[in-house]
Amino acid sequence: MNFLISPNSFKGSLGAFEVAEAIERGLKKASKSFETRCVPIADGGDHFADVLTKALGGRFVESEVTDPLGAKVKAKFGITPKGVAIIEMAKASGLALLNPNELDALNASSIGTGELMKKAVDEGCKEIILGIGGSATTDAGVGILKALGIRFFDKDGKEVWQGGEAVGKIQSVDTSGLDTRFEAVDIKIACDVENELLGERSAAKVFAPQKGASQLDVQKLDESLKSFADFTQKELGKEIGSLTHGGAAGGIAAGLYAWLGAELCNGIDLVMDQLGFDEHLPWADVVITAEGKLDFQTLDGKGPYGIAIEAKKHGILTVAFAGAIPPSELEKFEAFDTLLAIADSPMSLEKSMKECGRLLENAAFQVGKLLLVSRG
Amino acid sequence: MNFLISPNSFKGSLGAFEVAEAIERGLKKASKSFETRCVPIADGGDHFADVLTKALGGRFVESEVTDPLGAKVKAKFGITPKGVAIIEMAKASGLALLNPNELDALNASSIGTGELMKKAVDEGCKEIILGIGGSATTDAGVGILKALGIRFFDKDGKEVWQGGEAVGKIQSVDTSGLDTRFEAVDIKIACDVENELLGERSAAKVFAPQKGASQLDVQKLDESLKSFADFTQKELGKEIGSLTHGGAAGGIAAGLYAWLGAELCNGIDLVMDQLGFDEHLPWADVVITAEGKLDFQTLDGKGPYGIAIEAKKHGILTVAFAGAIPPSELEKFEAFDTLLAIADSPMSLEKSMKECGRLLENAAFQVGKLLLVSRG
Repeated sequence: MNFLISPNSFKGSLGAFEVAEAIERGLKKASKSFETRCVPIADGGDHFADVLTKALGGRFVESEVTDPLGAKVKAKFGITPKGVAIIEMAKASGLALLNPNELDALNASSIGTGELMKKAVDEGCKEIILGIGGSATTDAGVGILKALGIRFFDKDGKEVWQGGEAVGKIQSVDTSGLDTRFEAVDIKIACDVENELLGERSAAKVFAPQKGASQLDVQKLDESLKSFADFTQKELGKEIGSLTHGGAAGGIAAGLYAWLGAELCNGIDLVMDQLGFDEHLPWADVVITAEGKLDFQTLDGKGPYGIAIEAKKHGILTVAFAGAIPPSELEKFEAFDTLLAIADSPMSLEKSMKECGRLLENAAFQVGKLLLVSRG
Repeated sequence: MNFLISPNSFKGSLGAFEVAEAIERGLKKASKSFETRCVPIADGGDHFADVLTKALGGRFVESEVTDPLGAKVKAKFGITPKGVAIIEMAKASGLALLNPNELDALNASSIGTGELMKKAVDEGCKEIILGIGGSATTDAGVGILKALGIRFFDKDGKEVWQGGEAVGKIQSVDTSGLDTRFEAVDIKIACDVENELLGERSAAKVFAPQKGASQLDVQKLDESLKSFADFTQKELGKEIGSLTHGGAAGGIAAGLYAWLGAELCNGIDLVMDQLGFDEHLPWADVVITAEGKLDFQTLDGKGPYGIAIEAKKHGILTVAFAGAIPPSELEKFEAFDTLLAIADSPMSLEKSMKECGRLLENAAFQVGKLLLVSRG
């Protein structure tokens, strides 16, 4: 029996590779005859660059860039043997770089991510894959565009670019300074949400509060992004307000789509594509995925769900392990043939996280034995 | 697919019938095509009379009897349609009838259980099945024998019967008063342990401490039971000190074997026999068993393990659910094809017990789905 082991990381506990290895140990304990392939995943956020770069045998490059509020920060990204840059936006422009009391939704800028993209091109990359979970910004990518040489101005001709509120003041643009090398660079964004830039489930309304925005700030940001969408429409003839995925990462998806021709992809589909799932899936009899917590957000295109959907298409049995699963409405998770929590007794969250490897190994051992007997 | 659902109770949480029903709900949710039979079990202790009597469509009889220390207590037993009495010793002579500070290993008597047996014969029963878990006594069944009319005397000709220490004083016996109806009564004892009356793992050494015995008391009881075994050998020519199961329930198994011709049975085998497992197992594709806590004691002939062993002989897939499973050495539980804890997230023991039904239902739902896909 062939097992494709493709878990996410267990946030705060084990990385995706360690999770995969624990599951593999359990399966091998159940039967030495089991064949396994460990292909851990990431869905745009945590460990995106790390997982993809390692899985593809790439190398890491470190660069000093500007963090969301203007300080300097060292950020890593990966370059695959084929010359694809794997950039995790959170490393340069992420929430995790700031203290909770520093969060500044109105002023946080994505400029550092743009600096990483430039560095990638310096290194010769012709393709950039951008993972965008965990960003601190709501600036529609104007910070990135600034880093690449596009200059925006307010009604008085003063350059504006720092943060989502400033974006609302943009009245004119000068693209003549855009780094010309980017004309030949293919940019793909691994979007982890489908939200639009504007509207009922806008980037500002849904995500800005967790980036430190008050209700008033949300309103300001919605107005700024609306103004920028109108400006973009006027300048480029492109409608970005209602674009699917456009609201991802504070509108970076929308901004880079319009101004750089970036392709907006479903994060997990892009990841599966990069990791060669089109080859792995036909090989597999069983797919095992996992995530620290599986909840209804999982159904919004998170990694394990994307894998389950794809495995279903191939008629492959899919098992998901998690530290915690929802207490009800589990029938909504029908893409997973089985969804099992790994706790082996009543225990605290702390213990569960600490012993995550052992628990995963045992869960895989038990499921392995069950499949061994039931599938023969 | 045919599922035989045969759980133990989840002590302090759900009765065996409720456990079976929760598992059945989960399976039916996984597929309406699943056929299920709920045949909950008990392994001699908790709920023995209740589970067996209900499962066999019997009625309950209540009687006032003497508790281990001489007080009166109302105790229930069951009578099956075939006239078999199902007596749970703990109801008349159990630890649970006493407060912890009342425990008196030297003096606790099994007389009340004898009174129940007499009542069963009054009701016309020709067969008695005795479940003996949870007893407070270490009297080798002398209390029971007293209730049925056998009188024991000390060296001064004074009648002795109350408690394990008194048993050591026995020098003569008068069996002429034995209720003659018992000559035609078949007595089977559902033994939950294999311990002998005497020796390294004697009734006194292993079980008396939990019945309130100090180290000195254990020594006294060991000597008393040795003396009674010698007396029995002399009177009846029967060796009871080294008999397998003889030490069960403070030596009641040994005493009733010698003096009443009782048959000592492995508890779960007897239960499976009564519940018609010889018919159920050939019907089943999958056996699901369960217990509140599965640990290494489970391997000493507890219910779920007995079922797993029997199911294995028939080549039937066996799944066990539990509130908690051991953290290591799970390969020793190889009789179970799969051993799954039911917690669906990190949680307290209290919550796990309170939500036991929901957790069991979900665990069964997930395993049902897995089997549905993997077995087709």
